[in-house]
Amino acid sequence: MEAFWNNIRKVTPYTPGEQPKTENVIKLNTNENPYPPSPKVTEALESIGRLRMYPDPAASELVGAIADYKGLKKEQVFVGVGSDDVLAMCFLTFFNGKLPILFPDITYSFYDVWAELFQVPYELQKLKKDFSIDPEDYKKKNGGIIFPNPNAPTGVDMGLSKIEEILQENPDVIVIVDEAYVDFGCESAVSLLEKYPNLLVVQTFSKSRSLAGLRIGYAMGSSALIKALNDVKYSFNSYTMNQPSIVLGKAAIADEAYFQDTRRKIMETREWFKGEMKKLDFHFPDSKANFIFASHERIPASQIFEAARRENIYVRYFNKPGIDNYLRITIGTHSEMESFLTFLRTFIGKTV
Amino acid sequence: MEAFWNNIRKVTPYTPGEQPKTENVIKLNTNENPYPPSPKVTEALESIGRLRMYPDPAASELVGAIADYKGLKKEQVFVGVGSDDVLAMCFLTFFNGKLPILFPDITYSFYDVWAELFQVPYELQKLKKDFSIDPEDYKKKNGGIIFPNPNAPTGVDMGLSKIEEILQENPDVIVIVDEAYVDFGCESAVSLLEKYPNLLVVQTFSKSRSLAGLRIGYAMGSSALIKALNDVKYSFNSYTMNQPSIVLGKAAIADEAYFQDTRRKIMETREWFKGEMKKLDFHFPDSKANFIFASHERIPASQIFEAARRENIYVRYFNKPGIDNYLRITIGTHSEMESFLTFLRTFIGKTV
Repeated sequence: MEAFWNNIRKVTPYTPGEQPKTENVIKLNTNENPYPPSPKVTEALESIGRLRMYPDPAASELVGAIADYKGLKKEQVFVGVGSDDVLAMCFLTFFNGKLPILFPDITYSFYDVWAELFQVPYELQKLKKDFSIDPEDYKKKNGGIIFPNPNAPTGVDMGLSKIEEILQENPDVIVIVDEAYVDFGCESAVSLLEKYPNLLVVQTFSKSRSLAGLRIGYAMGSSALIKALNDVKYSFNSYTMNQPSIVLGKAAIADEAYFQDTRRKIMETREWFKGEMKKLDFHFPDSKANFIFASHERIPASQIFEAARRENIYVRYFNKPGIDNYLRITIGTHSEMESFLTFLRTFIGKTV
Repeated sequence: MEAFWNNIRKVTPYTPGEQPKTENVIKLNTNENPYPPSPKVTEALESIGRLRMYPDPAASELVGAIADYKGLKKEQVFVGVGSDDVLAMCFLTFFNGKLPILFPDITYSFYDVWAELFQVPYELQKLKKDFSIDPEDYKKKNGGIIFPNPNAPTGVDMGLSKIEEILQENPDVIVIVDEAYVDFGCESAVSLLEKYPNLLVVQTFSKSRSLAGLRIGYAMGSSALIKALNDVKYSFNSYTMNQPSIVLGKAAIADEAYFQDTRRKIMETREWFKGEMKKLDFHFPDSKANFIFASHERIPASQIFEAARRENIYVRYFNKPGIDNYLRITIGTHSEMESFLTFLRTFIGKTV
């Protein structure tokens, strides 16, 4: 091996979820929204303009639209290239202590990847048997705390009173609530921001606003924490948000009626789908997200996963201890879920 | 100060160039292209589609288009959110040694920012009196080398034979040639890739392809080096390139005639502008970029900068030792440069 390899960073490459390129598939594996973004987004496409110029490095129009919508000051909002970018910047900015940061053992699969990349010590906290987070586990000395609410890939949510319990015990470290799926029926911690200067809430346009293809995520917190994030971001890449993201993101926020309508449809489909899945002998924790995390009484998840894939139906399977008999199934349109159920009925009939 | 600040990263915030929001300005301060992107880019806007789905994390269509255009394999191209993102990833991936990396003392202002952020030791190499890079300075033990060609903010280029001299002396470290401005009349090091497995060449769509607003940069190198970059990128954020960037970037590459036409116009305007500036007693190193780095015989650069700004003409002034009497002037359209010259004639007449 050439000597120049000595100084090259060694990482275990992360493999993102499958993105099939064929057209005729039912794609329920990456928690996208089955509805297109607001028609106002498509209209705004024509006004993108100015592609030859650098975008506003502060993305002020988008930041302003989010702040107004959330009832915050502009200085309390940070935007990035999807919540992955925002969360990675958070790890780099806020987790520089010697004590381990704490997060659940079953959770968003990027947390340990970032911790490894930025050499942040971490300690996993076991979920309870019912997949819920026990606030007691977050009452020891630590270098910071992060968890999704609702949690992924389980879909289980935690009430605000439990989140406050964690915050009250941890005034000396940054606590990040990752709310990627919060708009599908779970309470947001944004209301706690005023009371806790060490709280940061992260959300995204990828799920409830149907804009995974644009890559927009954002963090909300005290203006001092947001400034710390911006300082790191500006040291890294000033112009992270491109002009289409700024213009189309703002248009999405402006269409409140469409947002309410599509998220309601997804929640309705989810509740109906839960009932159908129970009839087919699946069990799953009650989900407040746009997916359910389901296991069959008799048939191994890996078998269902492979069989569905052969029928061009993509769901997500994680071959990891503790969750290797579960499927994470995104809530698509009613008709997509019907197709999936039809497949399941046939497959289970043949297999059992 | 609350205890949670102890673990927050301390950085000196970087301030990007001014982005005036009013309409009636002549903006020659951030090296954008005065011509709109190819009309094919605007047409492609309508086909962006699929905003609700995650973009292809490998951005294969864009990577493929660039690889075909450059005569490389797909595995030899890495794309990122502007060349700033690509270069930051390069620092993180390739500069992990204990010896200092080397770059010029007068150069792109982000190199030392990234080195500080990622704690990479570095040593500045003085430019020669004529602002050129001396290859002799890059023949000592080091942890890696990076320089722009042509250099910024000077616009001075280095011939391929000198670049090869540096490569031949440094087989054990990664050498990065940052070619943000290469399309305006300078020789690219892409032709050396086959011979030097430790060479990486970085280019951008922001200048010669008029797409600063989209944020597309790319690195070219051996497939092994590109894999190392991708491994780090996937550990960070899988979906960095949004759908508009992928679709519109590909459309820009497809319109070769437009690319050749606009870059020729800029080079012609630059050469004519050089002559006019000499008549007004400016001196400057000969530039191969879409800007010139000029100093007036009698009037301090800071004065000209302020006076131009009052007339809504934006050029860039760096208040740094060694270059604090220079202005970096982007080449706009012929008519924008005429306006700037008219301003200069009046201002110099009044001042001297």
